[in-house]
Amino acid sequence: MSTRGYAVRGPSLPLEPFNFERREPGPHDVLVDIQYCGVCHSDIHQARNEWGGSNYPMVPGHEIIGAAAVVGDKVRKFKVGSKVGVGTFVDSCRRCGPCRAGEEQYCEDGATFTYNCYERDGKTLAQGGYSTYITVDEAYAFNIPEGIPPERAAPLLCAGTTTYSPLRHFGVKRNNRIAVVGLGGLGHMAVKLAKAMGANVTVMSHSPNKREDAMRLGADDFITTGDPEVFKKHASRFDFIIDAVSAKHDFNAYLNLLHFEGTMILVGLPDPTPLAPSALESQRRRLTGSNVGGTRETQEMLDFCAKHGIAADVEVIPIQRIEEAFDRTVRSDVRYRFVIDTASLKKS
Amino acid sequence: MSTRGYAVRGPSLPLEPFNFERREPGPHDVLVDIQYCGVCHSDIHQARNEWGGSNYPMVPGHEIIGAAAVVGDKVRKFKVGSKVGVGTFVDSCRRCGPCRAGEEQYCEDGATFTYNCYERDGKTLAQGGYSTYITVDEAYAFNIPEGIPPERAAPLLCAGTTTYSPLRHFGVKRNNRIAVVGLGGLGHMAVKLAKAMGANVTVMSHSPNKREDAMRLGADDFITTGDPEVFKKHASRFDFIIDAVSAKHDFNAYLNLLHFEGTMILVGLPDPTPLAPSALESQRRRLTGSNVGGTRETQEMLDFCAKHGIAADVEVIPIQRIEEAFDRTVRSDVRYRFVIDTASLKKS
Repeated sequence: MSTRGYAVRGPSLPLEPFNFERREPGPHDVLVDIQYCGVCHSDIHQARNEWGGSNYPMVPGHEIIGAAAVVGDKVRKFKVGSKVGVGTFVDSCRRCGPCRAGEEQYCEDGATFTYNCYERDGKTLAQGGYSTYITVDEAYAFNIPEGIPPERAAPLLCAGTTTYSPLRHFGVKRNNRIAVVGLGGLGHMAVKLAKAMGANVTVMSHSPNKREDAMRLGADDFITTGDPEVFKKHASRFDFIIDAVSAKHDFNAYLNLLHFEGTMILVGLPDPTPLAPSALESQRRRLTGSNVGGTRETQEMLDFCAKHGIAADVEVIPIQRIEEAFDRTVRSDVRYRFVIDTASLKKS
Repeated sequence: MSTRGYAVRGPSLPLEPFNFERREPGPHDVLVDIQYCGVCHSDIHQARNEWGGSNYPMVPGHEIIGAAAVVGDKVRKFKVGSKVGVGTFVDSCRRCGPCRAGEEQYCEDGATFTYNCYERDGKTLAQGGYSTYITVDEAYAFNIPEGIPPERAAPLLCAGTTTYSPLRHFGVKRNNRIAVVGLGGLGHMAVKLAKAMGANVTVMSHSPNKREDAMRLGADDFITTGDPEVFKKHASRFDFIIDAVSAKHDFNAYLNLLHFEGTMILVGLPDPTPLAPSALESQRRRLTGSNVGGTRETQEMLDFCAKHGIAADVEVIPIQRIEEAFDRTVRSDVRYRFVIDTASLKKS
């Protein structure tokens, strides 16, 4: 299927128009006519080769919403016209323990990520959602419930599931005291989701001017982290911390905000920072991390969002403004996710 | 009670004879006639003020075995002549959640550690087991089962419980694959205890010459960590890692040896070392730490050791050789615990 997209061809090059072919849908595939695609900070890291090993040309994008244009003979979850979501991966080994548990992001063979990754054939470079179409096996696509505006549903496919998965997996419950560190694309979803789960949510941010937003998003409290005294004042206060900060910061200071046996969950990818064993040992605290969400929890999260009236806060842009969106995302100047309207690709 | 001990009076001074008074036993107290006391690496850190905040004069020692010489009117657990153990703490608030759960080492008010700590009155400096007698509330003393030689029981009160507690708390089970990093006082107990719990135990050590000991102690495998290739070869192999190393080392390299959702437990106190979030996030691994063991698990561990014929491997010394023992402990030249025979104090 002839597809228009925007690709980057090297680490210091801008995104530019790129025409390519999607595979014709097989019996289990859905061809998705893409309507919106969110702009995740990891798109930028990979486009610019900041994590190393980038594969070019690269069409980024893994927060994809569209409509089923063609469905294979054996497809059961979708009909032509169904609202479809595609997230951070499009295939995996399907046999290992994590795959069988619907946690394909931890596939023992490695999941096939939606872009910047070779497909299972080892030859075809997967291409993402900054494009007009994508062909995907229905097992790796999601039903988008009615009631969530499609442009506001797109970021749920990464930012939503990346925060929902650890909240559920590590057992956040009603009245748990939880701190969300960093109020960006991930953080703002963590606030909404944790609040809907009944938790008492405190946002911690370097930016005092995010207080108003935090409270509007549903937070119960807000702490500005610029003053070191707050780390003494709030010692041992929280049961959980969701740490969504991508810039380097002191894990020990945050660990000491956890109560006895509290859990701090990293979902960002900051540079390594020194860890003091005493911060863990003195109160048997746990430090862990979580990587996006699998198919089971992603569908569950979408249904949860529909039930609780949750969607991402977005700024919709045409693809032609993608470089500006990248730069503003790097500066944290977005509330809280850019989403590309792919109608802009069809016109160009 | 007039007591003879050995004390250190400043960070760079040697231990030397020191006479002091123990409180007369109250209704809930036991006066213990000390027979043996283990030499823990933390005795050295504190004697030399390596963790800061040391209180002098300091009689170290928190691996204490003796016989009940006097028991208070209300004492129920011991009779005169009973074998008694005293471990790393001798009191706590007795009211908070951890105290009520028998995990007094995590007391919200702070436990009263056996030495280098003020008692609940805030004035009396607690003094440890390098001495002839100790008075302790029976709630903080342990029954030493028949069948464990007393000098080999002494190290169980710290090294034993420090490794038993996390093995039990984090749920090590039969056939779990567990790596014990560092074969010293803690590590050698971790091997024996994990093996008795049915785990498959691999020792990881910098010293190739510890292989024979590791296998004799019951290990199933041994890995020399000097060669960086071993960290590739054994990637994702273990369900648990007990990290008992006190020297600075790379946590990330070890985390990558854990399987999906594996748990690495720090029980040593190395200097802070850079942690890479990806080592946790890529496989939802957990890094945690554990601090000694509470009264509930310590008694359970002692009974477990008696049942399974487990005791520490020790080298018994007179108190007059304590400086040599400190130096050799720092050089890891002990297999695997020095234990002071306090008869040497009574003669001096």
